[in-house]
Amino acid sequence: ERDKYENNDVAGVVTGLAWTSVGGDILFIESILSKGKGALNITGNLGKVMKESATIAMEYIKSNATEFGIEPSIFEKYNVHIHVPEGATPKDGPSAGITMLTSLVSLFTQRKVKKSIAMTGEITLRGKVLPVGGIKEKILAAKRARIKEIILCEENRRDIQEIKAEYLKGLTFHYVTDMSEVIKLAITKQKVKNAKEL
Amino acid sequence: ERDKYENNDVAGVVTGLAWTSVGGDILFIESILSKGKGALNITGNLGKVMKESATIAMEYIKSNATEFGIEPSIFEKYNVHIHVPEGATPKDGPSAGITMLTSLVSLFTQRKVKKSIAMTGEITLRGKVLPVGGIKEKILAAKRARIKEIILCEENRRDIQEIKAEYLKGLTFHYVTDMSEVIKLAITKQKVKNAKEL
Amino acid sequence: ERDKYENNDVAGVVTGLAWTSVGGDILFIESILSKGKGALNITGNLGKVMKESATIAMEYIKSNATEFGIEPSIFEKYNVHIHVPEGATPKDGPSAGITMLTSLVSLFTQRKVKKSIAMTGEITLRGKVLPVGGIKEKILAAKRARIKEIILCEENRRDIQEIKAEYLKGLTFHYVTDMSEVIKLAITKQKVKNAKEL
Amino acid sequence: ERDKYENNDVAGVVTGLAWTSVGGDILFIESILSKGKGALNITGNLGKVMKESATIAMEYIKSNATEFGIEPSIFEKYNVHIHVPEGATPKDGPSAGITMLTSLVSLFTQRKVKKSIAMTGEITLRGKVLPVGGIKEKILAAKRARIKEIILCEENRRDIQEIKAEYLKGLTFHYVTDMSEVIKLAITKQKVKNAKEL
Amino acid sequence: ERDKYENNDVAGVVTGLAWTSVGGDILFIESILSKGKGALNITGNLGKVMKESATIAMEYIKSNATEFGIEPSIFEKYNVHIHVPEGATPKDGPSAGITMLTSLVSLFTQRKVKKSIAMTGEITLRGKVLPVGGIKEKILAAKRARIKEIILCEENRRDIQEIKAEYLKGLTFHYVTDMSEVIKLAITKQKVKNAKEL
Amino acid sequence: ERDKYENNDVAGVVTGLAWTSVGGDILFIESILSKGKGALNITGNLGKVMKESATIAMEYIKSNATEFGIEPSIFEKYNVHIHVPEGATPKDGPSAGITMLTSLVSLFTQRKVKKSIAMTGEITLRGKVLPVGGIKEKILAAKRARIKEIILCEENRRDIQEIKAEYLKGLTFHYVTDMSEVIKLAITKQKVKNAKEL
Ligand SMILES: [Ca+2]
Ligand SMILES: [Ca+2]
Ligand SMILES: [Ca+2]
Ligand SMILES: [Ca+2]
Ligand SMILES: [Ca+2]
Ligand SMILES: [Ca+2]
Ligand SMILES: [Ca+2]
Ligand SMILES: [Ca+2]
Ligand SMILES: [Ca+2]
Ligand SMILES: [Ca+2]
Ligand SMILES: [Ca+2]
Ligand SMILES: [Ca+2]
Repeated sequence: ERDKYENNDVAGVVTGLAWTSVGGDILFIESILSKGKGALNITGNLGKVMKESATIAMEYIKSNATEFGIEPSIFEKYNVHIHVPEGATPKDGPSAGITMLTSLVSLFTQRKVKKSIAMTGEITLRGKVLPVGGIKEKILAAKRARIKEIILCEENRRDIQEIKAEYLKGLTFHYVTDMSEVIKLAITKQKVKNAKEL
Repeated sequence: ERDKYENNDVAGVVTGLAWTSVGGDILFIESILSKGKGALNITGNLGKVMKESATIAMEYIKSNATEFGIEPSIFEKYNVHIHVPEGATPKDGPSAGITMLTSLVSLFTQRKVKKSIAMTGEITLRGKVLPVGGIKEKILAAKRARIKEIILCEENRRDIQEIKAEYLKGLTFHYVTDMSEVIKLAITKQKVKNAKEL
Repeated sequence: ERDKYENNDVAGVVTGLAWTSVGGDILFIESILSKGKGALNITGNLGKVMKESATIAMEYIKSNATEFGIEPSIFEKYNVHIHVPEGATPKDGPSAGITMLTSLVSLFTQRKVKKSIAMTGEITLRGKVLPVGGIKEKILAAKRARIKEIILCEENRRDIQEIKAEYLKGLTFHYVTDMSEVIKLAITKQKVKNAKEL
Repeated sequence: ERDKYENNDVAGVVTGLAWTSVGGDILFIESILSKGKGALNITGNLGKVMKESATIAMEYIKSNATEFGIEPSIFEKYNVHIHVPEGATPKDGPSAGITMLTSLVSLFTQRKVKKSIAMTGEITLRGKVLPVGGIKEKILAAKRARIKEIILCEENRRDIQEIKAEYLKGLTFHYVTDMSEVIKLAITKQKVKNAKEL
Repeated sequence: ERDKYENNDVAGVVTGLAWTSVGGDILFIESILSKGKGALNITGNLGKVMKESATIAMEYIKSNATEFGIEPSIFEKYNVHIHVPEGATPKDGPSAGITMLTSLVSLFTQRKVKKSIAMTGEITLRGKVLPVGGIKEKILAAKRARIKEIILCEENRRDIQEIKAEYLKGLTFHYVTDMSEVIKLAITKQKVKNAKEL
Repeated sequence: ERDKYENNDVAGVVTGLAWTSVGGDILFIESILSKGKGALNITGNLGKVMKESATIAMEYIKSNATEFGIEPSIFEKYNVHIHVPEGATPKDGPSAGITMLTSLVSLFTQRKVKKSIAMTGEITLRGKVLPVGGIKEKILAAKRARIKEIILCEENRRDIQEIKAEYLKGLTFHYVTDMSEVIKLAITKQKVKNAKEL
């Protein structure tokens, strides 16, 4: 049984699109803060490349904190834990990069993620979004999960154009080239309920 | 020979349900505190995913300490050791997540775990409980071990409905979607005997 | 050639029972203290599970120091080294647990271990002793080594009852369920000669 | 689909030439700074030798900071993250050495990398550039990617001479023996837009 | 070509007996001190068990420093490096234990090792010396190397008795049961030339 | 294509002789200093034994600093990086020991290495040089590379005597038994140009 989109009540929870050996699926990136000295914990039965994506997202945010409206001194006062649920399933690859980035920006700003949105794309340290594979399978899974909007790399536009129109009904696509566009599309101005004072 | 339910005299000891190559069994999650600086020790011949569950439980509690009635400064003053007995048996998988969470909340609050209760379910950083496999085998093992109440993920309800009624006689089921429900169901208001002053 | 029981002059040396591919044998658990900051060194060509037993024993003692009459501040002033001799033989499994626990309690209290006693059993963080395998082979080895008393888990009583009476002549068995019983049976009130002032 | 040259707006981004099992390609070396204590993070699904190149580049710059016009105290105030995008592709070998060196010098000086330039060559601690393999494939890839200038080791000159002239049209080659030449050729005097004050 | 005994001019150099796939040989245990904070470096292409022997020797000396006439505060002021030459040959097993112990006692007391002596035996934390294998091959190698005296475990006496008398001509054997006997036999009262002031 | 001898302008660069699966070759040992706290970085696609040689060389120099005219407090103020170029080639074995030692002494004294000299030999903590293999292949490679003088272990003299005289024309051999001889032969009194003030 496939997962369904869930609400956006909690900071740091973002919906990604995954492509596994049994087809497409959605996945959730979750992140939380606890008092600490800046440690980064990563769990979820992840392979090396997917763990690297979490590191890249974290370092990118640290390096560009002010652009995201984050006070840089926060990073030394909290530990961050990033988790990808369903521990029984091994996961790997770079395509959760923008989902992780969005999760961390939501976490550090305590702002709500946009409703019914999902995304897939590799991130880079220079702020570019890179295309990823398995687009067709991911789109079908997103629809099944009642996703309404999807963020993809501009270079993945042609993959969408190759999919029959009927499969795309009810889905809105956002094609991006830069990580700043992802954040603008995915994160609202509204704080989550019970937002933490950081 | 299978294990039997044991009493609930000690903080941090919670009964879980396991599904191994030789069928269902109960297992115990044990946790203790010692003076320290916040180190987390995990033993019991555990695989990577099961160790991750312990980390997730610990970080979730740290991040939501006040909701559990735990003073956050405690975490820096003690080391925590989580152990799953029967070292000769390799164990893995995410299904001990809620049992570990319950064990740690009991430990940090020094409150008694409810009598004759057992549980199985994956935990997430956003506070959701996820369904797990092997439900039928686990239920049979719980009955053999004289468990009276069982906590499961709401999504596992259908697995129970598929089991013959006679096998379920004498068992009460609690279906949950959130980790806070697990704690409400499993942990009493009563302190354990000789409760530690933390 | 098999090992023989040795005297009990030194704190921290306790006789265990092992079951190897070539039959039963006795083994010695040795532990020493050196000035330090609480590091735990474990040697003896041990596998993962046996190393975990040493960690469990150490953490259990730290968590219950006052019950063992140990001043908790000691743990931060000394390093502990636990060794299992005969480095050429790989060793693993949880059955040295109670022997390691006894070794460490003797070490930290500088009290003598009872003469001619040996033991085998898994330890848990909740203070229970669990049964272990290879009982028959271990008992024969204990007799050859001139052991007089043996501590076993209550759940191993039936394994002894299945052994011919003649093999048991001259051996006294103590069946326990809790780790506190092991310490009462195995450790005397008498300090070792040249006991260290801790 | 092969990558294209991108602009030089961001400090720390440099174009390298790679030779993979499926032919030549360009790759990007990206590096960023974040407040810290001098840690070096390396990601991008890299093998041991390629990670070593990053270490060598970093240590070489530290050891020769003043020659590069870098204030040595900077190294203790920032963490550096070096990334090579396209995490799905494993990468290894020493040939990204001069690209990494150039990336780090651009990063620490916040100066622009020259436009439309790419490079390949191994670096050494004594400041020499060493020749690398796969030159023909790399040159063809550079052309496809609209690179205009290429920096190579002097010892790779003969590899270029063996390539048909028509393939080289529109490309300018710079042959170097020392790492200082690479920096002179590749890094401009101009600061990047929004240069960080280090 | 086999090694020959060398002089005893340097503190921390002791001759051991090794049994390899190509027969017996002598080996040297070397140890040196450098200013530091108590780190222990072990090199020489050693396996896990042989490295453990070095740890055991070091911890035993720390725990019994005053009996060896060593000022305990020394251990926090120096790093120790133990090396076993001939890096091309992998080495393992517990039989270099007493040689390592002797090396370290010589190092920390800066006293000369007795001339023309060699040894083989496992060490324990309770101060016992344990028997080892390959005695015949080791004795032949010792003779070839012009060793005059050999220290062995008492339990290895029978192995010597099984060797033809003619092979033993010119060799004196010392059988020991305790590590203190090894030190008395192997280390002289005389300081090495240019002894370090520790 | 084989490497050629290079000049001796830079401190810490020394020529060694290597014996690989494709015959003899020369190799360079490079080392540099950067401000730090005494860390030792080792790169160059090296195996365990070759990395150990670097550790041994470093610790030997620390332990005998004054004999080399090095102020011991330097070691705590700098990090050392030792690199062996040509990262594409895996390298291992103990024979680069004396080359590494010479590199580090040159580095810490900022004195020039003698011109056109190369060397091969294992080092020990007691200051002895040990013989190594592949001498014939190494000598042929040295000649091709225009080396004039070669330092070898005294025990390798016989290997040279077995080589046809014509192959040795133009080469001077220095046979040594102690590491101090290597330093006297290989390092000049002259500081390198732009010597660092340490
Ligand atoms: Ca689900
Ligand atoms: Ca799923
Ligand atoms: Ca049981
Ligand atoms: Ca069981
Ligand atoms: Ca024995
Ligand atoms: Ca034995
Ligand atoms: Ca691309
Ligand atoms: Ca590419
Ligand atoms: Ca030799
Ligand atoms: Ca030898
Ligand atoms: Ca070359
Ligand atoms: Ca070469």
